[in-house]
Amino acid sequence: MTLFITKDTPVSDAVLNVIAHLPTTSLAATVEDGFFQKLSDADFMRIAVLLAQKGYDEGGCPIGGVVIDNKSRKIMGKGHNTLVQESHPYNHGETSAIRDAGRIDFSKTTIFTTLSPCDVCATLIYMRQFARVVVGDVTSASGNEDMIRSKGVQVDILEDLQGIALYSKYRAEKPDQDIEDWKGLAEVCKGKACC
Amino acid sequence: MTLFITKDTPVSDAVLNVIAHLPTTSLAATVEDGFFQKLSDADFMRIAVLLAQKGYDEGGCPIGGVVIDNKSRKIMGKGHNTLVQESHPYNHGETSAIRDAGRIDFSKTTIFTTLSPCDVCATLIYMRQFARVVVGDVTSASGNEDMIRSKGVQVDILEDLQGIALYSKYRAEKPDQDIEDWKGLAEVCKGKACC
Repeated sequence: MTLFITKDTPVSDAVLNVIAHLPTTSLAATVEDGFFQKLSDADFMRIAVLLAQKGYDEGGCPIGGVVIDNKSRKIMGKGHNTLVQESHPYNHGETSAIRDAGRIDFSKTTIFTTLSPCDVCATLIYMRQFARVVVGDVTSASGNEDMIRSKGVQVDILEDLQGIALYSKYRAEKPDQDIEDWKGLAEVCKGKACC
Repeated sequence: MTLFITKDTPVSDAVLNVIAHLPTTSLAATVEDGFFQKLSDADFMRIAVLLAQKGYDEGGCPIGGVVIDNKSRKIMGKGHNTLVQESHPYNHGETSAIRDAGRIDFSKTTIFTTLSPCDVCATLIYMRQFARVVVGDVTSASGNEDMIRSKGVQVDILEDLQGIALYSKYRAEKPDQDIEDWKGLAEVCKGKACC
């Protein structure tokens, strides 16, 4: 069957958005391998940001993640935060993408995340021995980059301005949800009589 | 409706096993609150070990976890490792039970885990601000108890001999699966031509 997205398809937000929304297991049947080989790191970060946008549109926290194979550049896993959508107390962009990837050797992969990893995700990244992590936003949050590097993982900063703007807007709209996602409902409830 | 398990039901492994297997959302419709109030810490650890046994019987890693409310002693979440069952690269006993509990204030809860927490679970326990963690096995694995304490979480050791024996048997049977669960497939593949 002829694939709709081929190595000759021009790279645009519109086509990257289709890839963001397709289940990872459907990519082999819809996208030619050559398309992925021409994508830059910034393009993969765009896919992660488009996943963050999907999460925002669902009422959730706009944070996305993408795991790619370093050699083929194919997507092995991707996802976005589901605190709201799944009532999931720790499914961040990174944990979501890693869960989607399943039981693979992460030392042959790179993870793109739209937001600087929290303590849990940073720990998971070094425990699963990722070769590299690319961080799309150290403006809204940061802190664990040096710790991850100290564990032998390459860390690159590649900020996506649309992703940063989206996160900034979201944080202003839902400050409590933002805190819950980071330090749990316990942090939101501190000193509040309603909890 | 009269509930099958009441405050007068004697505590036995058989009834704790029913509770381990019931979905958490079904407990309110099947078990009287008073039953949970009479359970000791060792009883909740038994439920966690019975969940580990369930995981073992499914071909997975025998590690279970239970989250209870400190005041009511009711179960808020529970689960077991699903590396094999869900092809899930980091769903340990603790992450499974916390996922099951959903968006609650974990500072009012205790988590029982059959095995000493890995780096990721230890980090999640302090980031979600648990009041207390009870560890059922520091014989097979340990190391993060002091780190968790340093973050303000109470850590108690309450070893369950059947749980320790089960984990020991499993580790001898499936050493590679045990390593993958701890440090990822990357660790298993190191130096192996087949990977």
